[in-house]
Amino acid sequence: MRMLRAGQPKTHRPIMLAIAGDSAAGKTTLTKGLVQALGPDRATAVCVDDYHRYDRAERKELPFTALHPDCNYVSIMEQHLQLLAMGQPILKPVYDHSTGLLARPELVEPQDFVIVEGLLPLFSKLARACFDVTVYLDPPEEIRREWKISRDTGSRGYAAESVDAELARREPESAEFIRPQRQQADMVVRFAPIATRSDPPETPLSAELLLRPTIRHPDLTKVLADEDHRSMHLKLIRDEDGRPVDALHVHGYASAEESDMLEKAIWEALGLDIPRPDTLGMLGEDKRSAPLAISQLLLLYHLLDFSAGQPEQAG
Amino acid sequence: MRMLRAGQPKTHRPIMLAIAGDSAAGKTTLTKGLVQALGPDRATAVCVDDYHRYDRAERKELPFTALHPDCNYVSIMEQHLQLLAMGQPILKPVYDHSTGLLARPELVEPQDFVIVEGLLPLFSKLARACFDVTVYLDPPEEIRREWKISRDTGSRGYAAESVDAELARREPESAEFIRPQRQQADMVVRFAPIATRSDPPETPLSAELLLRPTIRHPDLTKVLADEDHRSMHLKLIRDEDGRPVDALHVHGYASAEESDMLEKAIWEALGLDIPRPDTLGMLGEDKRSAPLAISQLLLLYHLLDFSAGQPEQAG
Repeated sequence: MRMLRAGQPKTHRPIMLAIAGDSAAGKTTLTKGLVQALGPDRATAVCVDDYHRYDRAERKELPFTALHPDCNYVSIMEQHLQLLAMGQPILKPVYDHSTGLLARPELVEPQDFVIVEGLLPLFSKLARACFDVTVYLDPPEEIRREWKISRDTGSRGYAAESVDAELARREPESAEFIRPQRQQADMVVRFAPIATRSDPPETPLSAELLLRPTIRHPDLTKVLADEDHRSMHLKLIRDEDGRPVDALHVHGYASAEESDMLEKAIWEALGLDIPRPDTLGMLGEDKRSAPLAISQLLLLYHLLDFSAGQPEQAG
Repeated sequence: MRMLRAGQPKTHRPIMLAIAGDSAAGKTTLTKGLVQALGPDRATAVCVDDYHRYDRAERKELPFTALHPDCNYVSIMEQHLQLLAMGQPILKPVYDHSTGLLARPELVEPQDFVIVEGLLPLFSKLARACFDVTVYLDPPEEIRREWKISRDTGSRGYAAESVDAELARREPESAEFIRPQRQQADMVVRFAPIATRSDPPETPLSAELLLRPTIRHPDLTKVLADEDHRSMHLKLIRDEDGRPVDALHVHGYASAEESDMLEKAIWEALGLDIPRPDTLGMLGEDKRSAPLAISQLLLLYHLLDFSAGQPEQAG
């Protein structure tokens, strides 16, 4: 057993990234790749779906699901996000998915980067104020259903019918509390097949990345200006609400060379003298998705860009 | 099941009292009387012995006991005390004495008064800075042993021998970490029999209350100047370390009339137009201790005095 002493609370402030999205939207996959690229000794991953006010048995008697803010200690989540943003440790609650019980809390000490993923990290203004970069994962509902069934019938042991029933039960609260967070994110990532194509079944999903002008993205106009790049393009569009936004499309069938060209351009825009991580985009052990790699690389760009721009603080 | 919404974090700062002392020193008895007198809707009791870093099984493999600061999340305790002092809610860890496991944490929302009792609330400067009033319970070791055996063999189900073994095992850490807190308290309360007397066995313990000039105590010189009060007296002495201190002695055999006279004087010194609580000093259902009542009343005096002196804050 390891005997860790409580580290002195760090006085430097970590860079904070929020990854919001509905259940099974791909948050953990995105997070894992970022932690691997930054190194587990520099990046702390925190899931904010553990701030349940009630355990599974108690929730059965309630008129709302675990998605509802009233079902969660939102003010404690906000407090913990503020503490992490100030470089302070927290004693984070833990929800055990296998038993449905609230378990022993765990100490979380923020490292240089804190990646916060969950259902509601962008729910309130106070929570949003804690982040340097925010992303919302927005797969089409039919894709998300596939992912949720695949995960929940696998590692969590549910039947497909009960997953469908749960999705239906959660839908009104998804609409009311989860999906509005899309409007709050600096980046919206949508993995989906391209409707107008019929790629072979093994083709990775394409991605549409909305890059909102709320943070400064790398300038991709030059590298993507060339009309030859059929598998990736950058397009100025209006978002659902009419706001202007850059839409970066990366097709699932993008070749390794094309993807590499774009990744290289993003990395070089950082201007840092460190090698580009080669572990991005991994789906499981041996499958690589160029759209995932580029999504992760763009987030990595922002994390490292904020980190490099941060003034040195007294220790 | 109650469905409590998270209350808006209160913006007013509660009055904070620390009750420190070794295991079975009488902290809970003192706390209960104060909560009852203030009203459970105005007073929040918090035990800071739940900030264990390890559960009982894990502690078995460790070279120190639960008393050691390294065995506790001291920096999280400090953080939670700071949050409570600022009127913020906390999600407090919970240690289950019956199972020896760390359990589901609980929401604590500070009310007007927060009474923090435990082994180490005055351990660090940061923790001490959170309190308006601090008290250390300092019974002689043989009295504490009796109390601990009585409690641990009763409600906690241990054998007397194992309690003695545990006391011996804890002694070096009591000396190193618990007892030094005595020097930090505004008030030191010592319940003990009077060595030079042979009162009947049912006589309540006497109390010696050291009133340090670190906070402003009510002026008791006048009411206790009368030489007729043989069962209570106030004496200017030097503490163990040479510092001047007022020592208030209240003998266990003090008559109800004498005790009432002193309690009345303390209460009137407050100058508040509210009736004196009549529930103080209770030991169990029907036994009353005048020394306990006076100790509680003095603490109540300080809590209400600080509360009355606090500037109104915007809500």
